[in-house]
Amino acid sequence: MDVLGYGTFDATSRLGPIVFNQPEAREGEVEIEITHCGVCHSDLHQARNDWGNTVWPCIPGHEIVGIVRKTGPGVTAYKEGDRVGVGCMINSCQSCGPCEAHDEQYCEGPVSATLTYNGTKIPSGVNTYGGYTETIVVREEFVLRIPDAIDSAAAAPILCAGITVYAPMKEFGLKPGHTVAVAGVGGLGHMAVQIAKALGATVVAFSRSEKKRAEILEMGADKVVDPTDEDAMEAEAGSVDLMINTIPVPFDIAPYLSLMRHDGRLQIVGNMIELEAFSPGPMVFNRITIGGSLIGGIKDTQEVLDLCAEHGIAPAIQMIGIDDVNDALDSLEQGGIGHFRHVIDMRSLRDSRESMSQNASRAEEPVRFQPEAG
Amino acid sequence: MDVLGYGTFDATSRLGPIVFNQPEAREGEVEIEITHCGVCHSDLHQARNDWGNTVWPCIPGHEIVGIVRKTGPGVTAYKEGDRVGVGCMINSCQSCGPCEAHDEQYCEGPVSATLTYNGTKIPSGVNTYGGYTETIVVREEFVLRIPDAIDSAAAAPILCAGITVYAPMKEFGLKPGHTVAVAGVGGLGHMAVQIAKALGATVVAFSRSEKKRAEILEMGADKVVDPTDEDAMEAEAGSVDLMINTIPVPFDIAPYLSLMRHDGRLQIVGNMIELEAFSPGPMVFNRITIGGSLIGGIKDTQEVLDLCAEHGIAPAIQMIGIDDVNDALDSLEQGGIGHFRHVIDMRSLRDSRESMSQNASRAEEPVRFQPEAG
Repeated sequence: MDVLGYGTFDATSRLGPIVFNQPEAREGEVEIEITHCGVCHSDLHQARNDWGNTVWPCIPGHEIVGIVRKTGPGVTAYKEGDRVGVGCMINSCQSCGPCEAHDEQYCEGPVSATLTYNGTKIPSGVNTYGGYTETIVVREEFVLRIPDAIDSAAAAPILCAGITVYAPMKEFGLKPGHTVAVAGVGGLGHMAVQIAKALGATVVAFSRSEKKRAEILEMGADKVVDPTDEDAMEAEAGSVDLMINTIPVPFDIAPYLSLMRHDGRLQIVGNMIELEAFSPGPMVFNRITIGGSLIGGIKDTQEVLDLCAEHGIAPAIQMIGIDDVNDALDSLEQGGIGHFRHVIDMRSLRDSRESMSQNASRAEEPVRFQPEAG
Repeated sequence: MDVLGYGTFDATSRLGPIVFNQPEAREGEVEIEITHCGVCHSDLHQARNDWGNTVWPCIPGHEIVGIVRKTGPGVTAYKEGDRVGVGCMINSCQSCGPCEAHDEQYCEGPVSATLTYNGTKIPSGVNTYGGYTETIVVREEFVLRIPDAIDSAAAAPILCAGITVYAPMKEFGLKPGHTVAVAGVGGLGHMAVQIAKALGATVVAFSRSEKKRAEILEMGADKVVDPTDEDAMEAEAGSVDLMINTIPVPFDIAPYLSLMRHDGRLQIVGNMIELEAFSPGPMVFNRITIGGSLIGGIKDTQEVLDLCAEHGIAPAIQMIGIDDVNDALDSLEQGGIGHFRHVIDMRSLRDSRESMSQNASRAEEPVRFQPEAG
């Protein structure tokens, strides 16, 4: 069936209406009417082809909340009317080592994990289109249940920002008594502060922004330290068990390493920046590890949704209409939105369906690989 | 009692005879007549004050093998005549978290672990003198049993080089089926190749030295790869579970990160070099960690000695007399000794006792801290 989305055919144009063919839900698949979609920095990178791997057209969006409209044969976990979420993946091989270990984001199958947009559909091999659309079709194993206690708009960013900071806390085995440092309190960091606190940790946030200080303390941080204040940094030396480092620009890791305790883990999430040259001496003397991780698996994503529901954790959001998406991406590009997340009220797309469809470009489905015959 | 050692009073003089006072073994302590002592690169760094923390005089040596001569009251684990070893530590607080976890090298007690030389004796606070001496007095918990199957000379380097590469293999949970990379096949690396093989891993060594290739294969490596050969490196991409990286100079970690498999660990041991700037992207996409570690605990040191005995693992060594120590340190400084270890036959010191004692300087015992009264 024809579905309306909002995307772009090249790296320089502004996003606009695109009509594409979306096959009906097949066996094991769920069709979701999208009500909310968060705007993630990755949406901007992919639409601008910053990673050099965009397949056109690109229709971004991987913080999706909506209502189940149809289920394909054999679907048992969801039924029409359920309020559900979709994060960064809609399928994977479901049989490799990482998939068996509930780490589908590291799928080692033939096409890796099928990303929600700019991914490779199994088995057709065509490009995926994300959450800036009316509906999406997803494997039931990749659909999340939204707990009643969470608003749909607030749930959206948990599906990417929330899971990205929760997964390394779980892998580390974070527990009450541990001290968590959050370096960089933006979209990811402000979720990290709240989630670490809910897990019982002492939370120290590192932020240069004097005006954010009161807000960060209100989120639950026990302390806010200015990383440019050498005395304040010295006072925290050797105190941190786990650092969630979300700094999105090249930086000097040495002052952050000095904060780490014996057996501590400094975790880099959410970006693929450059680390400046540094001495691993402190790592040797204190058995510190530097780790990296990519979002998180589906089981963990459900866990963090449930945790946020239980503890009343919510991201800071600002609602926008589909017409505002280009401006929202521009603000992201200019780095000026602080820690809140834009969430698109997707009714705005459906409400403009008639006029938009007239101006929409039609997408031919690009094939990423030629599936084997048979 | 007066004991003869071989050390230096400043960073520029050559080592020579030094007489110092060594108190008798007290409760829980063991006095060992030293028969063999390995020459480690740390000996050179400490004697030259490369780390800026040397307390003078400095008498190096922490790869010690000898015979128990006396035991203090209450010692139960050893008796006169036992062949024993001493590595990089002779005591620790034995009650902090790391000590309880058998990681005494990370002791968080008042004076940290008491290093075998340039350490702080408990409770007197005086400087420790290492294995370039006739005898040493050590807490019984820090004495190692040398298995019958290992020569005393071969055992010496296991106490430092062996444990340094074994500890991260154990912490990682290395098991048959894993692939271990050894980057830099020198004193540490050639032990890593043999130990990883004994633990059942597939071992790939990375060495630029064409002439070392046959020798490394003979040690048990399944393959030797030249890290400057891009095609060969490409062929190993994503294949390594654990890398023991012993490269002793600043280097580009990026090509080594590309070798790592999902959930792999790149471990830096034996030095505190600089890592050049790099992108943590591969760490994020494959959940790779970079770790560091310092020697290993006493329990693990006994384990690696027993493992070497069981599997006939031995370091490549070259015996020298005490008179050759300055030349051995010079060769180390010039970087020309390859992967073998110099081991001093300490009879050469005892045999020259009479003449050396006449020329020896007398050391006043420097106090590192003033122990609390009471």
